[in-house]
Amino acid sequence: MAINLEFYNTLNRKKEVFEPLNPPNVGMYVCGPTVYGDPHLGHARAAIVFDVVFRLLSHFGYKVRYVRNITDVGHLENDADGGEDKIAKKARLEQLEPMEIVQLYTDQYHKAMDALNMLHPSIEPRASGHIIEQIAMIEEIMENGFGYEKDGSVYFDVVEYNKKNHYGKLSGRVVEELLDNTRDLEGQDDKKNSVDFALWKKAQPEHIMRWPSPWSVGFPGWHLECSTMGAKYLGSPFDIHGGGMDLLFPHHECEIAQSQAANKQDPVKYWMHNNMITINGQKMSKSLNNFITLDQLFEGDHEALDQAYAPMTIRFFILQAHYRGTLDFSNDALKAAEKGYRKLMNSIATASKLSPGEKSTSDIPALVENCEKAIKDDLSTSILISHLFEGVRITNSVKIGEETISKGDLSLLNKMFEDYAFNILGFQAEADQTGQGVIGPLMDLILDIRQDARVNKNFDISDKIRDALTTMKITTKDEKDGTSWTYDE
Amino acid sequence: MAINLEFYNTLNRKKEVFEPLNPPNVGMYVCGPTVYGDPHLGHARAAIVFDVVFRLLSHFGYKVRYVRNITDVGHLENDADGGEDKIAKKARLEQLEPMEIVQLYTDQYHKAMDALNMLHPSIEPRASGHIIEQIAMIEEIMENGFGYEKDGSVYFDVVEYNKKNHYGKLSGRVVEELLDNTRDLEGQDDKKNSVDFALWKKAQPEHIMRWPSPWSVGFPGWHLECSTMGAKYLGSPFDIHGGGMDLLFPHHECEIAQSQAANKQDPVKYWMHNNMITINGQKMSKSLNNFITLDQLFEGDHEALDQAYAPMTIRFFILQAHYRGTLDFSNDALKAAEKGYRKLMNSIATASKLSPGEKSTSDIPALVENCEKAIKDDLSTSILISHLFEGVRITNSVKIGEETISKGDLSLLNKMFEDYAFNILGFQAEADQTGQGVIGPLMDLILDIRQDARVNKNFDISDKIRDALTTMKITTKDEKDGTSWTYDE
Repeated sequence: MAINLEFYNTLNRKKEVFEPLNPPNVGMYVCGPTVYGDPHLGHARAAIVFDVVFRLLSHFGYKVRYVRNITDVGHLENDADGGEDKIAKKARLEQLEPMEIVQLYTDQYHKAMDALNMLHPSIEPRASGHIIEQIAMIEEIMENGFGYEKDGSVYFDVVEYNKKNHYGKLSGRVVEELLDNTRDLEGQDDKKNSVDFALWKKAQPEHIMRWPSPWSVGFPGWHLECSTMGAKYLGSPFDIHGGGMDLLFPHHECEIAQSQAANKQDPVKYWMHNNMITINGQKMSKSLNNFITLDQLFEGDHEALDQAYAPMTIRFFILQAHYRGTLDFSNDALKAAEKGYRKLMNSIATASKLSPGEKSTSDIPALVENCEKAIKDDLSTSILISHLFEGVRITNSVKIGEETISKGDLSLLNKMFEDYAFNILGFQAEADQTGQGVIGPLMDLILDIRQDARVNKNFDISDKIRDALTTMKITTKDEKDGTSWTYDE
Repeated sequence: MAINLEFYNTLNRKKEVFEPLNPPNVGMYVCGPTVYGDPHLGHARAAIVFDVVFRLLSHFGYKVRYVRNITDVGHLENDADGGEDKIAKKARLEQLEPMEIVQLYTDQYHKAMDALNMLHPSIEPRASGHIIEQIAMIEEIMENGFGYEKDGSVYFDVVEYNKKNHYGKLSGRVVEELLDNTRDLEGQDDKKNSVDFALWKKAQPEHIMRWPSPWSVGFPGWHLECSTMGAKYLGSPFDIHGGGMDLLFPHHECEIAQSQAANKQDPVKYWMHNNMITINGQKMSKSLNNFITLDQLFEGDHEALDQAYAPMTIRFFILQAHYRGTLDFSNDALKAAEKGYRKLMNSIATASKLSPGEKSTSDIPALVENCEKAIKDDLSTSILISHLFEGVRITNSVKIGEETISKGDLSLLNKMFEDYAFNILGFQAEADQTGQGVIGPLMDLILDIRQDARVNKNFDISDKIRDALTTMKITTKDEKDGTSWTYDE
């Protein structure tokens, strides 16, 4: 299989030809959401980028097992005001139940992902469902001399590990510098070194998610779940580990250290990171009041929003940028994306109805090749989309008779839209989203009546139709072979 | 709170007034699907019945925590032909991964449940996510003298338990008779008594879902997960445990025994069981080729089906029968349900547009009271639906001027439909399902044009409209104050 995909591998800081460890199988692990809040734009970007990686790998014939976890082991605390006794006496049903919160936000996340036309991962494991496996991994790390217990908690000994391994190989951080920078900031605590991190934490009374372990009743450290579940479902090593740039350090660096410490090998061949989203140039944060959830975007329900934006507008907006660059959200950018997306979709619909001519005036095979080249070049979706717009230009030129296209090239053009716009970039025609199957026939009838009315100079009817369609924001356009219509741009 | 709901409690074999243990909180646990196959009609019935219980309890002011589990710990076997060594050598990614199957069928189940307009449970715990808790419960059962280990597996000692407790209190089975009936059938095995059941099974080499335990690397017995997760999320005892009649014995009987053995108290106050679905009088089974999945029903894709049936048709069909009676599926019954459902929905839409008169010719408050009485009487949805059809009759009589309704009664009637048809029975107007927001305005325009055409005796246009609408299966009806339209019945 010579597929020649290239991805930028954060581990080696360069683009590399993708060669899976065990072709045609590919194992891909992506850090999923922490389900204690509504999904927001940041979630959407990571999920969309790796959805396209998943689609791309599958399209070119790989058999992908895609694992995206749900982080549901959190540090929720009981808002007890009277100490433990009072809590213990309360009926179980009156207590805060973290799993109820987990369920609510997991459902919200799934709903938003479905709206954004994301394929489901092959496996979506939950951290809380893999406590036994996490405990087993801690035991291995301790046996190999890289973990130590203190008062019921277990920590990873970064300094010891760094003697014979390289902590910082992914992020470029240097342990000595980290020690210098953190020594003064951290107070006295149970850790030997300020750079050490928790593998297991003894639960304080206010922590309500807890499990028994050899060290204490407690809960696993956050970095551990991904190491454990990645190895469980994909083996060690596996091919691709993805996530947002904000997870690179310490989360992914710690994942590498844990896996090396337990299994004595690098866990992942290709590390891929998507960059962040800013809002009008600023970091998204609750204090700046620019923290926009996906539901708010879809409904237009936030003071920073001029209007609602459809899920496909968001998807288009995100894929118009390369995944390794930052992406700035603004109403203007979203409105431009909305317009561009409609233009693309309208043109794809037009292309499916074009009549072929004798020969082609544009080089369609070269265009298709350019699309393939772009997506294979480290997921250059922005360049791919610009090629698709060259397809839009050709389509419109053929339609108004300025260009011609041969029968073979026309089906190539339609297949290009199908493969790249729908299958790989994961766009969806807007009509598909709402299943408005009867609207087409109703519009045909109305346009038919209007045509007759014009011929018979019955302007009352044609004016009435024009006004009603304007109210419904439907625009019609008269063309050679009939009238087409679109929702307003 | 005097709400006076009555449910049939299988435990006491009679209808009882529902009095929650800890009002206004209610804990309800319902046995969910085993996710190794497509969801079918049987899944739909259990889920719909307890969805209505959930809606009903919430409607009357209870604060319900509704737990429905996912059984994902199965006995999937590797189809290895060369023994364990060969398996161990295979790359992780080439192996069958049970969690991939679990994910696929969990997603299918959720999709079907959403189509059927089911509210999401408050918590949807997975058996595989609660191995630690199940091991802890086995340890308690053993400490109390009701479990024994044999060759790495642990069994529940039914005979010992039955000396001071009553195994059979739910199902009416008698241990001595069970022993007589099963003694000859069972060969020699590790169990002391043929009626004993497994709490923990040592994994054979071909079993690929396995966890460490104090007894062996293995997996929990099937009955255990519900006892463990019910107690974890709802406490012990809790209010309602629901499930299909086929689970009554041995599953629910064993749940009671396990909880009694571990916690020394009855786990559940009210046991509720829905009856089974038969297909043309026969039991559903794969060998009879009458095993119809929900997707096949929605698509009409099975040789036993005359046509596709919409999710709301299925919901209506199931709720037209009392949950404790068997329900026979047939094409005729489904077609009748489809017709009845559309009639109800059309009439509800009509009622919202009726003009009130001076006084009412029918007793609307009595009708509303009857609805409440029916649903509170052990979930008599069939009787409730017949009352809703009395509302349909009144609506249609008012519309054609044979009856009148006062302003107050009209809003009562509309509220009755809202409360009982939508909120409690969980029906959904079909237009809501497809979100066809622009169809209404388009139809208004078309009917307006047709009206003008008739006035101007322009029969070309009115005929053209009639024919086009017929093709689209849209029926129009002229009425006092305009024209109404519906999709064909």
